[in-house]
Amino acid sequence: MSAAAIILAAGLGTRMRSARPKVMHPLAGRPMIRHLLAACEAQFERIVIVVGPDMPDLEKAVAPHQVVVQHERLGTGHAALQARSLLGGYNGDVAVLYGDNPLVTPETIGRLLAARREGGILALLAMRPADPGRYGRVIQDADGSVTRIVEWADATEQERAVPLCNAGVVCAPAQDLFDWLGRVKNDNAKGEYYLTDVVAMGYRSPTGTRRVVAVEAPEAELRGINSKAELAAAEAELQSRLRVAALDAGVTMTAPETVFLSHDTALAADVVIEPHVVFAPGVIVEAGATIRAFSHLEGCVVKRDAVIGPYARLRPGTVVEPRAHVGNFVELKATTLGEGAKANHLAYLGDASIGAGANIGAGTITCNYDGVHKHRTAIGQGAFIGSNTALVAPVQVGDRALVGAGSVITADVPDDALAIARGQQAVKPGRGFKGKKG
Amino acid sequence: MSAAAIILAAGLGTRMRSARPKVMHPLAGRPMIRHLLAACEAQFERIVIVVGPDMPDLEKAVAPHQVVVQHERLGTGHAALQARSLLGGYNGDVAVLYGDNPLVTPETIGRLLAARREGGILALLAMRPADPGRYGRVIQDADGSVTRIVEWADATEQERAVPLCNAGVVCAPAQDLFDWLGRVKNDNAKGEYYLTDVVAMGYRSPTGTRRVVAVEAPEAELRGINSKAELAAAEAELQSRLRVAALDAGVTMTAPETVFLSHDTALAADVVIEPHVVFAPGVIVEAGATIRAFSHLEGCVVKRDAVIGPYARLRPGTVVEPRAHVGNFVELKATTLGEGAKANHLAYLGDASIGAGANIGAGTITCNYDGVHKHRTAIGQGAFIGSNTALVAPVQVGDRALVGAGSVITADVPDDALAIARGQQAVKPGRGFKGKKG
Amino acid sequence: MSAAAIILAAGLGTRMRSARPKVMHPLAGRPMIRHLLAACEAQFERIVIVVGPDMPDLEKAVAPHQVVVQHERLGTGHAALQARSLLGGYNGDVAVLYGDNPLVTPETIGRLLAARREGGILALLAMRPADPGRYGRVIQDADGSVTRIVEWADATEQERAVPLCNAGVVCAPAQDLFDWLGRVKNDNAKGEYYLTDVVAMGYRSPTGTRRVVAVEAPEAELRGINSKAELAAAEAELQSRLRVAALDAGVTMTAPETVFLSHDTALAADVVIEPHVVFAPGVIVEAGATIRAFSHLEGCVVKRDAVIGPYARLRPGTVVEPRAHVGNFVELKATTLGEGAKANHLAYLGDASIGAGANIGAGTITCNYDGVHKHRTAIGQGAFIGSNTALVAPVQVGDRALVGAGSVITADVPDDALAIARGQQAVKPGRGFKGKKG
Repeated sequence: MSAAAIILAAGLGTRMRSARPKVMHPLAGRPMIRHLLAACEAQFERIVIVVGPDMPDLEKAVAPHQVVVQHERLGTGHAALQARSLLGGYNGDVAVLYGDNPLVTPETIGRLLAARREGGILALLAMRPADPGRYGRVIQDADGSVTRIVEWADATEQERAVPLCNAGVVCAPAQDLFDWLGRVKNDNAKGEYYLTDVVAMGYRSPTGTRRVVAVEAPEAELRGINSKAELAAAEAELQSRLRVAALDAGVTMTAPETVFLSHDTALAADVVIEPHVVFAPGVIVEAGATIRAFSHLEGCVVKRDAVIGPYARLRPGTVVEPRAHVGNFVELKATTLGEGAKANHLAYLGDASIGAGANIGAGTITCNYDGVHKHRTAIGQGAFIGSNTALVAPVQVGDRALVGAGSVITADVPDDALAIARGQQAVKPGRGFKGKKG
Repeated sequence: MSAAAIILAAGLGTRMRSARPKVMHPLAGRPMIRHLLAACEAQFERIVIVVGPDMPDLEKAVAPHQVVVQHERLGTGHAALQARSLLGGYNGDVAVLYGDNPLVTPETIGRLLAARREGGILALLAMRPADPGRYGRVIQDADGSVTRIVEWADATEQERAVPLCNAGVVCAPAQDLFDWLGRVKNDNAKGEYYLTDVVAMGYRSPTGTRRVVAVEAPEAELRGINSKAELAAAEAELQSRLRVAALDAGVTMTAPETVFLSHDTALAADVVIEPHVVFAPGVIVEAGATIRAFSHLEGCVVKRDAVIGPYARLRPGTVVEPRAHVGNFVELKATTLGEGAKANHLAYLGDASIGAGANIGAGTITCNYDGVHKHRTAIGQGAFIGSNTALVAPVQVGDRALVGAGSVITADVPDDALAIARGQQAVKPGRGFKGKKG
Repeated sequence: MSAAAIILAAGLGTRMRSARPKVMHPLAGRPMIRHLLAACEAQFERIVIVVGPDMPDLEKAVAPHQVVVQHERLGTGHAALQARSLLGGYNGDVAVLYGDNPLVTPETIGRLLAARREGGILALLAMRPADPGRYGRVIQDADGSVTRIVEWADATEQERAVPLCNAGVVCAPAQDLFDWLGRVKNDNAKGEYYLTDVVAMGYRSPTGTRRVVAVEAPEAELRGINSKAELAAAEAELQSRLRVAALDAGVTMTAPETVFLSHDTALAADVVIEPHVVFAPGVIVEAGATIRAFSHLEGCVVKRDAVIGPYARLRPGTVVEPRAHVGNFVELKATTLGEGAKANHLAYLGDASIGAGANIGAGTITCNYDGVHKHRTAIGQGAFIGSNTALVAPVQVGDRALVGAGSVITADVPDDALAIARGQQAVKPGRGFKGKKG
């Protein structure tokens, strides 16, 4: 019952008009290829990725899976054949999938594998697109076995009228598959070796009946990504799946279509999300928390009943403890905001730990960077930081300490102390504003 | 011609996966139940809400209408019967509606009431959904009278083919309705008392001809809300209605689908709204005002020809006088910004009154909170507040006063005076930045 | 082969409920009329705009094209006739188009002109709307020539069943057109002179065969704008075109439907745009740059590999040099940010030039406005501006200079110098925060 996957990912994706390897373009916060890998990891015990030459980022992104390099681009059949060095002796089924086809689900892959085991020498994925266009068509015999794939260019009028289209994904026993791949020829218009040709070989092989099985799946899962427009369409499909899953889990979203989630966004039941919110990867939000409009979260934990935003930016390493508030135009980076603490207006808090119940005034800034290193700021429980304060790190402000508005704090402030650092106010009568209308 | 309504709102809404009573989830800025109440208040002289035990927030939200508590959840018929203690002697029609069905319009309710008075002993609301699914079907006799509602589970193939579906809302004279409700039985699979059963009782009652009338309404009005996905769909329907009404009133919206309105948002003709704007409840915008992108407004008045945003946050109690400007990353709370005054960049103005023509520099912050109380700041007409100024309230800055940049103002500044409060600049040659590249 | 256009733009647009002339409402960042002019400029050697009285803004907006004023609003035929004073002696074709019909493409206009020259004495634009509603219908004879336009109100049932609808745009030789226009009568229900009447006149004219040609175009191009709802729909159509063009050019957009472009937004291949971004007019973004979520750009240049946002506002006159970063809650106006320089948090930089590699601390503000004039700030290469600094312009900070956090800089800082301007810190034990919980 064991199975292995070959993922073809060597394509340049010239229609993407990008220097980046096609399968490295991100969807829902991770490279396209990792979506397909996640689906495959649920179904295959081994995965081999066929990459192009000089794609070190891609090789890193697919680790710990094995890669083989296709040095010349001679077609999909040739690409799949490169995996023979790793899987030639494999005792089980091998499926060939496409790195630019990342929306296929584990369920569909499972049906493909089952169909191969139970139904024939080869199984393939097929779909019935709303507009079949120039897809290859799946030709079946009277018994329902697929006999071959006919490319649109080569198809007769009658064949073009067939609604069942080839999605390109095939599955067969390793020995058979590599045997067929070794015999695929390139005597066609493009001079390429087509993976598709193994279908007819499977049908003509002497084993069994109903030998080649077509497994149908929704077009939305099987569409490839060849352009930035198709990339955006795939993102929309993934976002739709993620939003439905969040709603089903009990998340309240006023306007789901304006909320962008990452593949790993973890939202508890009874979380409320207002319109226009973006979740970059690595976010966990606990029950009862509210994420208000125009907020942007990444790599952070928001604990129960905390309120974030509007216009809050939480960056990696941030933890917002229960019932804490992060308000508008406030950025937190690698900072813990203690239980019930508040940072409600126009603040930058970086590399800081802030005690429970502390109040961070409007315009407070932690000066955490001296141009070379980052330094930490510690603020105690119940401390009150007056507005427009600069805290020059490394610095500590004690529990229940009070910092006067407009101060630049360069030395530690003990518990229960008042610190103030500002100029004296001078008033000069009669020297007021004599401006445009003065 | 008088009529009363019973609104069933006792449901727990377990599919919402929330601790909150289902009908208390907000739509367009107010609890779901209040949308239905608003529609009912236009058509009924009395309204009784049937709530579950331990729903104090809901009881408060429906005031001043009367509530009765359904202590055991024994079905919709049982729930409606709880209102007999209040409406048993009522001399007029009684309609039964659903708190989780908040999109029904006053017009539709009016047609229901008229149909009852003019057409039969009982009237009910029905719809023809695109996908009838498992709705109960409305069965009619040869004369067009409804004979009964058949639940999907009990329906024959022929009955399931009926496109007319039951929306659950019924209307009948009080005496008849409570008489029937008292006779509904729970000898069914679920052991519940179904409100639906009164339909057949009405049909069998000896009064009149065409006795039970189905009043059709659009599915969009009659869909119930049982999950967070359905809640989001209802919000989308309401937002669509609100946007269409605003456009029809002459509001310009570049991208209506990115603008979120509240039930009470009041926008004059010739208001311009850019993309990505959120209106929480209680906002009034006068003619000629422009609300720029990424702004968030709540409980405020924006007067004629004022310009708000982009990225402006107006909180409750704010009044922006004519031709005033509120710019990016500026928050106003309980503040009046005088005619033609400007606060264009990165400011927090709370509990303040700002005179006509005043200029509030970038980074200005009113220190209105001392950790215990809020204090007020008053700024005079034509005053000029330099950038990065902290105004420690309570404090007054006079007309045409000038405050130097970077000051912390702790004492009042007279009219026409200059105030400055900052440190002296020291320069130390050769001690510049010797950072990463230094 | 030469041709001229008459554009009818005198309408008040009362259904727009606005003081502004209808064709002056903006779409994708410029007045509606300028979209039509751009399409016409590609196809016509002369363009005459018929305006209403007292529309000085419109006359300015259509410059350098000629205008004629229609003093009385007596119908479309009367409006077109006003152009006779300028085009009466024109030797070529004249087309009549509508200022509130701005989505027609140059390609469609080209097909109209070709059809007139090759096919008949008159050509007109027609469409097959999904809902033909109350459009006038195009009546054709057995040979396919249009015989006349029948208004919906005057049409028989049979005529109303015709799917081909009149879009109003006509093209004919100047002499013929003005001759017919001079003979149009107003003996109809509204007492108006209808441009439409020239169609039947063309058909009855003695010249040629297949004399009046209908050129079909998509409804999306030919819909008129008569209300704020239709204005929003036209904006949506234009945004869709602009987004598709950007994607085809290789721009990556996570969520194109949340990105708003202007007619002239210039985005290179391999630019990445996150959700919720607004481009006002005049923006150029070079390859490799990333525009993060919630950013707003206008009149600026973002060079290669720069990173903007999230929450960045770039205003006119801003240049962000290669690899520079503009972070959250940062506004730039008429400012150049040097190569690799960073302004990452809560800053306002106006009328400034910032050297390569400089680091602008959080909360930095250039005090560029004294209430009367704007002044410039210059910051040298590799300088480090500490957080919460106010730079009172005019002022210069030298190369590699270091400014201490919380300073107010009023005098120039030499190269390699340290400048600091802040109060001394005082600490008073036991006088800490004794607030709500103290």
